[in-house]
Amino acid sequence: MVKLGRIEYKPIPVRDLLVEIKDLSELMIDLAYSAALFNSKALAEEVLELEEHVDTLAYLLDMNVMIAVRDAEDAERLVGVSAVASAADKISDAAADIAAIVLLDIGLHPIIREAFKKVEERLTCTKVKSNSILIGQKMGDLELAAKIGVDIIAIRREMEWIINPNEDKMLNEGDTLFARGAPLGVKELEGLAEGNIRKLENS
Amino acid sequence: MVKLGRIEYKPIPVRDLLVEIKDLSELMIDLAYSAALFNSKALAEEVLELEEHVDTLAYLLDMNVMIAVRDAEDAERLVGVSAVASAADKISDAAADIAAIVLLDIGLHPIIREAFKKVEERLTCTKVKSNSILIGQKMGDLELAAKIGVDIIAIRREMEWIINPNEDKMLNEGDTLFARGAPLGVKELEGLAEGNIRKLENS
Repeated sequence: MVKLGRIEYKPIPVRDLLVEIKDLSELMIDLAYSAALFNSKALAEEVLELEEHVDTLAYLLDMNVMIAVRDAEDAERLVGVSAVASAADKISDAAADIAAIVLLDIGLHPIIREAFKKVEERLTCTKVKSNSILIGQKMGDLELAAKIGVDIIAIRREMEWIINPNEDKMLNEGDTLFARGAPLGVKELEGLAEGNIRKLENS
Repeated sequence: MVKLGRIEYKPIPVRDLLVEIKDLSELMIDLAYSAALFNSKALAEEVLELEEHVDTLAYLLDMNVMIAVRDAEDAERLVGVSAVASAADKISDAAADIAAIVLLDIGLHPIIREAFKKVEERLTCTKVKSNSILIGQKMGDLELAAKIGVDIIAIRREMEWIINPNEDKMLNEGDTLFARGAPLGVKELEGLAEGNIRKLENS
């Protein structure tokens, strides 16, 4: 993740900024749904922080695009890039709106739960128990995406959050995993975390 | 899909409206990415029409919520529902923004293609050839979602578009299928449409 302080121009490749804005905004939608479905205010707070981060990235992208553009032709070539960044920024705002509902402390209305039903099947929140084979394994070695079609989108480790954990991150006993994927893969991950499934096979 | 003319109050259950707004807005994002990746202006136009439809649904939802609310307690219970609808509406706006880029006729900048790389793996646009086993099969009987983890999100049949086809819809030779799903499932659908895979099995 590109690290940022206050918003001042930094020369960062537009490509890197766009990929990060795009990926973060998608991730944020699933994190916001997870915060709502699993009633996690702490996760909702993380989504609001990510939204600020995306805003900053979007400003930086605009600044870098402006500097890159020298003539009308450049401008025509790059206007689409700005538009995609702004669309992704809108999606991250929408995720923050959903997260904000969780913080309102009004509970999830049955109508909202109904609307989230399809989403619910492909999201999970599961704790790594003491006899789980996931303990001590690196994310990159597990290859959950390739093997069971599941991405771990966040890990809650005591008071710490690891959002979008990278390949080197190792899983610990007691970690709470937030994940998304195909409904069958999601069930498999739950079994692996709970220690009921003892082997991770290619599906 | 709820059919609508001009925006006038109709008593439609808030639940139905929210589910439809939510599902359509998610669908629209994938349709907009598909329009960009497969350079389909016709599909981009469909996304813009859907965006207007979602706007109308959002107005109707707000009106129905207003009428349903009698006191402060109702208002507190339902404010989250309005907020989720408005977040979904924002997502549909973002989808329309992406579709609008396709209509600008400026081509997909390599940076945008890079940002869409992850999305590209889970989207396809494939034509049903004369020897495909999909011909004459109903969507509901194929069970593509359960069997290969793929949803057909739109069918282009000559000049007609079938968005989010229902279970009774039958596939024809020459249909162009727009679908989303796990990368492996997407490849399998392509094989089925092209006639290279002759059997649909549970994966």
